[in-house]
Amino acid sequence: MVHQEQLDFPTRGHGHMQDLTNKVAEIVRRSKIRTGVAHVFAVGSTAAVGLIEFEPGLQRDLPQLLDRVIPPSREYAHEQTWHDGNGHSHLQSTWLGASLSVPVSEGKLRLGTWQQIFHLECDIRPRDRSVIVTVYGE
Amino acid sequence: MVHQEQLDFPTRGHGHMQDLTNKVAEIVRRSKIRTGVAHVFAVGSTAAVGLIEFEPGLQRDLPQLLDRVIPPSREYAHEQTWHDGNGHSHLQSTWLGASLSVPVSEGKLRLGTWQQIFHLECDIRPRDRSVIVTVYGE
Amino acid sequence: MVHQEQLDFPTRGHGHMQDLTNKVAEIVRRSKIRTGVAHVFAVGSTAAVGLIEFEPGLQRDLPQLLDRVIPPSREYAHEQTWHDGNGHSHLQSTWLGASLSVPVSEGKLRLGTWQQIFHLECDIRPRDRSVIVTVYGE
Repeated sequence: MVHQEQLDFPTRGHGHMQDLTNKVAEIVRRSKIRTGVAHVFAVGSTAAVGLIEFEPGLQRDLPQLLDRVIPPSREYAHEQTWHDGNGHSHLQSTWLGASLSVPVSEGKLRLGTWQQIFHLECDIRPRDRSVIVTVYGE
Repeated sequence: MVHQEQLDFPTRGHGHMQDLTNKVAEIVRRSKIRTGVAHVFAVGSTAAVGLIEFEPGLQRDLPQLLDRVIPPSREYAHEQTWHDGNGHSHLQSTWLGASLSVPVSEGKLRLGTWQQIFHLECDIRPRDRSVIVTVYGE
Repeated sequence: MVHQEQLDFPTRGHGHMQDLTNKVAEIVRRSKIRTGVAHVFAVGSTAAVGLIEFEPGLQRDLPQLLDRVIPPSREYAHEQTWHDGNGHSHLQSTWLGASLSVPVSEGKLRLGTWQQIFHLECDIRPRDRSVIVTVYGE
Protein backbone atom coordinates (compact mmCIF):
# COMPACT_ATOMS: atom_id res chain seq x y z
CA MET A 1 0.00 0.00 0.00
CA VAL A 2 1.14 3.50 -0.87
CA HIS A 3 -0.47 6.82 0.03
CA GLN A 4 0.90 10.17 -1.19
CA GLU A 5 -0.13 13.73 -0.43
CA GLN A 6 1.34 17.16 -1.04
CA LEU A 7 1.60 19.91 1.57
CA ASP A 8 1.70 23.50 0.27
CA PHE A 9 2.58 26.46 2.47
CA PRO A 10 4.32 29.85 2.36
CA THR A 11 7.56 30.66 4.21
CA ARG A 12 8.86 33.94 5.60
CA GLY A 13 12.37 33.64 4.13
CA HIS A 14 15.85 32.65 5.28
CA GLY A 15 15.93 30.70 8.52
CA HIS A 16 12.16 30.29 8.88
CA MET A 17 11.40 26.92 10.51
CA GLN A 18 7.96 25.33 10.55
CA ASP A 19 6.74 22.26 12.44
CA LEU A 20 5.18 19.76 9.98
CA THR A 21 4.62 16.96 12.50
CA ASN A 22 0.85 17.31 12.90
CA LYS A 23 0.26 17.58 9.16
CA VAL A 24 2.38 14.51 8.45
CA ALA A 25 0.60 12.64 11.28
CA GLU A 26 -2.78 13.44 9.67
CA ILE A 27 -1.58 12.04 6.34
CA VAL A 28 -0.41 8.86 8.10
CA ARG A 29 -3.88 8.57 9.68
CA ARG A 30 -5.63 9.04 6.33
CA SER A 31 -3.34 6.42 4.73
CA LYS A 32 -4.75 3.69 7.06
CA ILE A 33 -1.26 2.16 7.01
CA ARG A 34 -0.47 0.46 10.36
CA THR A 35 3.17 -0.59 9.89
CA GLY A 36 5.60 1.07 7.51
CA VAL A 37 7.47 4.27 6.82
CA ALA A 38 6.49 7.90 6.12
CA HIS A 39 8.83 9.69 3.70
CA VAL A 40 8.96 13.50 3.80
CA PHE A 41 10.55 15.40 0.90
CA ALA A 42 11.15 19.12 0.36
CA VAL A 43 10.73 20.04 -3.29
CA GLY A 44 13.30 22.66 -4.36
CA SER A 45 17.04 23.21 -3.98
CA THR A 46 17.00 25.98 -1.31
CA ALA A 47 14.87 24.30 1.36
CA ALA A 48 15.41 21.41 3.78
CA VAL A 49 13.57 19.08 6.14
CA GLY A 50 14.87 17.52 9.34
CA LEU A 51 14.16 16.33 12.86
CA ILE A 52 14.54 18.47 15.98
CA GLU A 53 12.99 19.32 19.34
CA PHE A 54 10.79 22.12 17.96
CA GLU A 55 11.22 24.77 20.67
CA PRO A 56 12.00 28.51 20.29
CA GLY A 57 15.67 28.25 21.31
CA LEU A 58 16.62 25.64 18.72
CA GLN A 59 14.58 27.52 16.10
CA ARG A 60 17.16 30.28 16.52
CA ASP A 61 20.18 28.01 17.06
CA LEU A 62 19.86 25.87 13.94
CA PRO A 63 19.69 28.70 11.35
CA GLN A 64 22.50 30.49 13.23
CA LEU A 65 24.66 27.35 13.11
CA LEU A 66 24.04 26.99 9.38
CA ASP A 67 24.92 30.65 8.79
CA ARG A 68 28.10 30.27 10.87
CA VAL A 69 29.36 27.16 9.00
CA ILE A 70 28.00 28.16 5.57
CA PRO A 71 27.88 31.97 5.79
CA PRO A 72 25.91 34.22 3.41
CA SER A 73 28.87 36.55 3.09
CA ARG A 74 31.41 34.22 1.45
CA GLU A 75 32.35 34.33 -2.22
CA TYR A 76 30.61 31.32 -3.74
CA ALA A 77 31.21 30.28 -7.35
CA HIS A 78 27.42 30.00 -7.65
CA GLU A 79 27.20 33.77 -7.11
CA GLN A 80 29.70 34.62 -9.79
CA THR A 81 27.33 33.14 -12.38
CA TRP A 82 23.89 33.70 -10.90
CA HIS A 83 24.19 36.79 -8.65
CA ASP A 84 21.04 35.73 -6.80
CA GLY A 85 22.49 35.91 -3.29
CA ASN A 86 21.55 32.25 -2.79
CA GLY A 87 24.92 30.47 -2.86
CA HIS A 88 24.75 29.70 0.86
CA SER A 89 21.05 28.79 0.53
CA HIS A 90 21.81 25.98 -1.92
CA LEU A 91 24.70 24.68 0.16
CA GLN A 92 22.71 24.77 3.41
CA SER A 93 19.88 22.83 1.74
CA THR A 94 22.27 20.19 0.35
CA TRP A 95 24.09 19.96 3.68
CA LEU A 96 20.99 19.41 5.82
CA GLY A 97 19.07 17.44 3.21
CA ALA A 98 15.62 17.47 1.64
CA SER A 99 14.64 13.86 2.38
CA LEU A 100 13.89 11.97 5.60
CA SER A 101 11.81 8.99 6.68
CA VAL A 102 10.05 8.17 9.94
CA PRO A 103 8.77 4.70 10.92
CA VAL A 104 5.02 4.14 11.30
CA SER A 105 3.89 1.70 14.05
CA GLU A 106 0.27 0.93 15.01
CA GLY A 107 -0.86 3.62 12.58
CA LYS A 108 1.24 6.40 14.12
CA LEU A 109 4.55 8.18 13.52
CA ARG A 110 7.13 6.54 15.77
CA LEU A 111 8.88 9.76 16.88
CA GLY A 112 10.45 10.47 20.25
CA THR A 113 8.52 12.76 22.62
CA TRP A 114 10.77 15.74 21.85
CA GLN A 115 11.39 14.87 18.20
CA GLN A 116 9.47 16.83 15.56
CA ILE A 117 9.62 17.10 11.76
CA PHE A 118 10.55 20.58 10.54
CA HIS A 119 10.78 22.44 7.25
CA LEU A 120 13.55 25.04 6.97
CA GLU A 121 13.56 27.86 4.43
CA CYS A 122 17.17 28.45 3.28
CA ASP A 123 16.32 30.87 0.45
CA ILE A 124 16.87 34.57 1.10
CA ARG A 125 13.29 35.34 0.04
CA PRO A 126 9.86 34.18 1.25
CA ARG A 127 8.72 31.30 -0.96
CA ASP A 128 5.71 29.11 -1.63
CA ARG A 129 6.88 25.59 -0.79
CA SER A 130 5.73 22.04 -1.41
CA VAL A 131 6.51 18.99 0.66
CA ILE A 132 5.59 15.51 -0.61
CA VAL A 133 4.64 12.93 2.02
CA THR A 134 4.60 9.29 0.91
CA VAL A 135 3.46 6.60 3.35
CA TYR A 136 4.05 2.95 2.47
CA GLY A 137 3.53 -0.29 4.33
CA GLU A 138 0.53 -2.39 5.27
CA MET B 1 5.78 -7.02 2.65
CA VAL B 2 6.84 -5.03 5.70
CA HIS B 3 8.77 -6.24 8.75
CA GLN B 4 9.49 -3.98 11.72
CA GLU B 5 11.55 -4.56 14.87
CA GLN B 6 12.86 -2.38 17.67
CA LEU B 7 16.42 -2.49 19.02
CA ASP B 8 16.92 -1.35 22.63
CA PHE B 9 20.35 -0.70 24.12
CA PRO B 10 22.14 1.54 26.61
CA THR B 11 24.77 4.14 25.66
CA ARG B 12 27.73 5.47 27.62
CA GLY B 13 27.05 9.17 26.89
CA HIS B 14 28.31 11.89 24.56
CA GLY B 15 30.29 10.60 21.58
CA HIS B 16 29.62 6.91 22.18
CA MET B 17 29.37 5.10 18.83
CA GLN B 18 27.98 1.59 18.43
CA ASP B 19 27.98 -0.68 15.38
CA LEU B 20 24.39 -1.79 14.60
CA THR B 21 25.22 -3.61 11.34
CA ASN B 22 24.93 -7.19 12.60
CA LYS B 23 21.69 -6.54 14.44
CA VAL B 24 20.13 -4.87 11.40
CA ALA B 25 21.38 -7.75 9.20
CA GLU B 26 19.64 -10.26 11.51
CA ILE B 27 16.37 -8.34 11.22
CA VAL B 28 16.71 -8.36 7.42
CA ARG B 29 17.24 -12.15 7.57
CA ARG B 30 14.19 -12.66 9.76
CA SER B 31 12.09 -10.48 7.43
CA LYS B 32 12.59 -13.00 4.55
CA ILE B 33 12.59 -10.00 2.21
CA ARG B 34 14.88 -10.61 -0.77
CA THR B 35 14.77 -7.25 -2.60
CA GLY B 36 13.95 -3.96 -0.96
CA VAL B 37 15.18 -1.43 1.57
CA ALA B 38 15.99 -1.47 5.29
CA HIS B 39 15.17 1.77 7.10
CA VAL B 40 17.00 2.56 10.36
CA PHE B 41 15.66 5.28 12.67
CA ALA B 42 16.99 6.66 15.96
CA VAL B 43 14.13 7.60 18.30
CA GLY B 44 14.92 10.79 20.24
CA SER B 45 16.27 14.24 19.48
CA THR B 46 19.81 13.86 20.90
CA ALA B 47 20.96 10.74 19.02
CA ALA B 48 21.87 9.98 15.41
CA VAL B 49 22.48 7.12 13.00
CA GLY B 50 24.85 7.04 10.05
CA LEU B 51 27.22 5.07 7.85
CA ILE B 52 30.98 4.82 8.41
CA GLU B 53 33.95 2.47 8.34
CA PHE B 54 33.55 1.35 11.95
CA GLU B 55 37.18 1.38 13.11
CA PRO B 56 38.70 2.88 16.29
CA GLY B 57 40.24 5.91 14.60
CA LEU B 58 37.01 7.17 13.04
CA GLN B 59 35.14 6.42 16.28
CA ARG B 60 37.29 9.18 17.78
CA ASP B 61 37.36 11.42 14.69
CA LEU B 62 33.60 11.74 14.12
CA PRO B 63 32.60 12.89 17.63
CA GLN B 64 35.62 15.25 17.66
CA LEU B 65 34.55 16.73 14.33
CA LEU B 66 31.01 17.26 15.61
CA ASP B 67 32.32 18.91 18.80
CA ARG B 68 34.61 21.15 16.72
CA VAL B 69 31.87 22.38 14.34
CA ILE B 70 29.05 22.36 16.93
CA PRO B 71 30.93 22.85 20.23
CA PRO B 72 29.47 22.14 23.69
CA SER B 73 30.85 25.44 25.00
CA ARG B 74 28.90 27.89 22.83
CA GLU B 75 25.95 29.94 24.04
CA TYR B 76 22.92 28.28 22.48
CA ALA B 77 19.43 29.77 22.79
CA HIS B 78 18.26 26.28 23.77
CA GLU B 79 20.37 26.56 26.95
CA GLN B 80 18.92 29.89 27.96
CA THR B 81 15.53 28.22 28.36
CA TRP B 82 16.37 24.65 29.30
CA HIS B 83 19.77 24.77 31.06
CA ASP B 84 20.25 21.07 30.36
CA GLY B 85 23.70 21.36 28.75
CA ASN B 86 22.31 19.66 25.62
CA GLY B 87 22.13 22.52 23.09
CA HIS B 88 24.99 21.05 21.04
CA SER B 89 23.52 17.55 21.46
CA HIS B 90 20.29 18.53 19.72
CA LEU B 91 22.11 20.35 16.92
CA GLN B 92 24.57 17.50 16.34
CA SER B 93 21.65 15.05 16.11
CA THR B 94 19.75 17.24 13.64
CA TRP B 95 22.92 17.85 11.61
CA LEU B 96 23.90 14.19 11.23
CA GLY B 97 20.34 12.85 11.06
CA ALA B 98 18.28 10.15 12.72
CA SER B 99 17.10 8.37 9.55
CA LEU B 100 18.90 6.31 6.88
CA SER B 101 18.06 3.51 4.47
CA VAL B 102 20.17 0.70 3.01
CA PRO B 103 19.18 -1.41 -0.02
CA VAL B 104 18.51 -5.13 0.44
CA SER B 105 19.55 -7.47 -2.40
CA GLU B 106 19.31 -11.28 -2.37
CA GLY B 107 18.17 -11.11 1.24
CA LYS B 108 21.20 -9.15 2.47
CA LEU B 109 22.13 -5.55 3.28
CA ARG B 110 23.89 -4.13 0.22
CA LEU B 111 26.67 -2.27 2.09
CA GLY B 112 30.24 -1.74 0.96
CA THR B 113 32.93 -3.86 2.63
CA TRP B 114 34.07 -1.02 4.87
CA GLN B 115 30.63 0.55 5.33
CA GLN B 116 28.82 -0.06 8.61
CA ILE B 117 25.66 1.32 10.28
CA PHE B 118 26.35 3.18 13.53
CA HIS B 119 24.39 4.75 16.34
CA LEU B 120 25.89 7.87 17.93
CA GLU B 121 24.94 9.17 21.35
CA CYS B 122 24.96 13.01 21.25
CA ASP B 123 23.41 13.54 24.71
CA ILE B 124 25.75 14.50 27.54
CA ARG B 125 24.44 11.62 29.68
CA PRO B 126 24.26 7.84 29.20
CA ARG B 127 20.82 6.96 27.85
CA ASP B 128 18.62 3.96 27.08
CA ARG B 129 18.02 4.16 23.34
CA SER B 130 15.63 2.67 20.80
CA VAL B 131 16.21 2.22 17.10
CA ILE B 132 13.36 1.14 14.82
CA VAL B 133 14.30 -1.02 11.82
CA THR B 134 11.69 -1.35 9.07
CA VAL B 135 12.38 -3.67 6.12
CA TYR B 136 10.10 -3.48 3.10
CA GLY B 137 10.13 -5.13 -0.31
CA GLU B 138 9.40 -8.62 -1.61
CA MET C 1 6.12 -3.68 -6.21
CA VAL C 2 9.89 -3.31 -5.97
CA HIS C 3 12.38 -2.67 -8.77
CA GLN C 4 16.14 -2.52 -8.14
CA GLU C 5 19.02 -1.69 -10.45
CA GLN C 6 22.72 -0.96 -10.00
CA LEU C 7 24.57 1.93 -11.66
CA ASP C 8 28.32 1.46 -12.20
CA PHE C 9 30.62 4.32 -13.20
CA PRO C 10 34.17 5.60 -12.70
CA THR C 11 35.04 8.81 -10.87
CA ARG C 12 37.98 11.19 -11.30
CA GLY C 13 38.86 11.43 -7.59
CA HIS C 14 38.31 13.84 -4.71
CA GLY C 15 35.54 16.37 -5.26
CA HIS C 16 34.26 14.90 -8.53
CA MET C 17 30.50 15.41 -8.76
CA GLN C 18 28.29 13.62 -11.27
CA ASP C 19 24.61 14.16 -12.09
CA LEU C 20 22.70 10.87 -11.72
CA THR C 21 19.22 12.33 -12.29
CA ASN C 22 18.64 11.05 -15.83
CA LYS C 23 19.86 7.56 -15.00
CA VAL C 24 17.65 7.35 -11.91
CA ALA C 25 14.70 8.70 -13.95
CA GLU C 26 15.22 5.91 -16.53
CA ILE C 27 15.15 3.28 -13.78
CA VAL C 28 11.91 4.78 -12.45
CA ARG C 29 10.45 4.56 -15.98
CA ARG C 30 11.51 0.91 -16.35
CA SER C 31 10.00 0.10 -12.93
CA LYS C 32 6.49 1.02 -14.18
CA ILE C 33 5.80 2.27 -10.65
CA ARG C 34 3.40 5.25 -10.71
CA THR C 35 3.32 6.30 -7.04
CA GLY C 36 6.05 5.61 -4.56
CA VAL C 37 9.65 6.41 -3.68
CA ALA C 38 13.02 6.00 -5.39
CA HIS C 39 15.88 5.23 -2.99
CA VAL C 40 19.44 6.06 -4.10
CA PHE C 41 22.39 4.57 -2.21
CA ALA C 42 26.15 5.03 -2.66
CA VAL C 43 28.01 1.80 -1.88
CA GLY C 44 31.30 2.49 -0.08
CA SER C 45 32.46 4.60 2.86
CA THR C 46 34.24 7.39 0.95
CA ALA C 47 31.45 8.50 -1.41
CA ALA C 48 28.17 10.35 -0.96
CA VAL C 49 24.91 11.17 -2.73
CA GLY C 50 22.80 14.28 -2.35
CA LEU C 51 20.50 16.84 -3.94
CA ILE C 52 21.65 20.12 -5.47
CA GLU C 53 21.15 22.50 -8.36
CA PHE C 54 23.69 20.81 -10.62
CA GLU C 55 25.45 23.83 -12.11
CA PRO C 56 29.21 24.51 -12.46
CA GLY C 57 29.44 27.03 -9.59
CA LEU C 58 27.97 24.73 -6.96
CA GLN C 59 30.07 21.84 -8.31
CA ARG C 60 33.05 23.85 -7.09
CA ASP C 61 31.40 25.29 -3.96
CA LEU C 62 30.25 22.03 -2.36
CA PRO C 63 33.62 20.17 -2.41
CA GLN C 64 35.32 23.40 -1.24
CA LEU C 65 32.89 23.72 1.65
CA LEU C 66 33.51 20.11 2.67
CA ASP C 67 37.29 20.63 2.50
CA ARG C 68 36.98 23.80 4.59
CA VAL C 69 34.89 22.21 7.37
CA ILE C 70 36.55 18.76 7.19
CA PRO C 71 40.02 19.57 5.81
CA PRO C 72 42.41 17.01 4.29
CA SER C 73 45.28 18.46 6.27
CA ARG C 74 44.13 17.76 9.82
CA GLU C 75 45.49 14.97 12.01
CA TYR C 76 42.78 12.33 12.03
CA ALA C 77 42.99 9.26 14.28
CA HIS C 78 42.03 7.24 11.19
CA GLU C 79 45.35 8.27 9.60
CA GLN C 80 47.44 7.19 12.53
CA THR C 81 46.33 3.61 11.91
CA TRP C 82 45.72 3.46 8.17
CA HIS C 83 48.00 6.10 6.60
CA ASP C 84 45.81 6.12 3.50
CA GLY C 85 45.24 9.88 3.34
CA ASN C 86 41.48 9.26 3.49
CA GLY C 87 40.55 10.39 7.00
CA HIS C 88 38.70 13.44 5.68
CA SER C 89 37.17 11.33 2.87
CA HIS C 90 35.43 9.04 5.35
CA LEU C 91 34.20 11.92 7.49
CA GLN C 92 32.92 13.89 4.48
CA SER C 93 31.01 10.81 3.27
CA THR C 94 29.45 10.21 6.71
CA TRP C 95 28.62 13.90 7.08
CA LEU C 96 26.86 14.29 3.74
CA GLY C 97 25.37 10.78 3.68
CA ALA C 98 25.15 7.86 1.27
CA SER C 99 21.37 7.44 1.27
CA LEU C 100 18.50 9.57 -0.04
CA SER C 101 14.97 9.06 -1.33
CA VAL C 102 12.88 10.99 -3.85
CA PRO C 103 9.10 10.64 -4.24
CA VAL C 104 7.68 9.22 -7.47
CA SER C 105 4.37 10.68 -8.74
CA GLU C 106 2.62 9.75 -11.99
CA GLY C 107 5.60 7.59 -12.88
CA LYS C 108 8.18 10.38 -12.54
CA LEU C 109 10.70 11.65 -9.99
CA ARG C 110 9.06 14.50 -8.07
CA LEU C 111 12.09 16.83 -8.01
CA GLY C 112 12.10 20.60 -8.17
CA THR C 113 13.12 22.22 -11.44
CA TRP C 114 16.60 23.08 -10.13
CA GLN C 115 16.99 20.01 -7.93
CA GLN C 116 19.19 17.19 -9.19
CA ILE C 117 20.60 13.96 -7.70
CA PHE C 118 24.40 13.92 -7.53
CA HIS C 119 27.15 11.47 -6.64
CA LEU C 120 30.24 12.94 -4.96
CA GLU C 121 33.61 11.20 -4.84
CA CYS C 122 35.25 11.94 -1.47
CA ASP C 123 38.17 9.49 -1.88
CA ILE C 124 41.55 10.98 -2.80
CA ARG C 125 41.84 8.57 -5.76
CA PRO C 126 39.68 7.88 -8.82
CA ARG C 127 37.40 4.93 -8.06
CA ASP C 128 34.93 2.60 -9.75
CA ARG C 129 31.65 3.24 -7.95
CA SER C 130 28.27 1.55 -7.60
CA VAL C 131 24.98 3.18 -6.75
CA ILE C 132 21.91 1.03 -5.98
CA VAL C 133 18.54 2.44 -7.01
CA THR C 134 15.45 0.81 -5.45
CA VAL C 135 12.01 1.98 -6.55
CA TYR C 136 8.97 0.84 -4.56
CA GLY C 137 5.30 1.65 -4.70
CA GLU C 138 2.45 0.74 -6.99
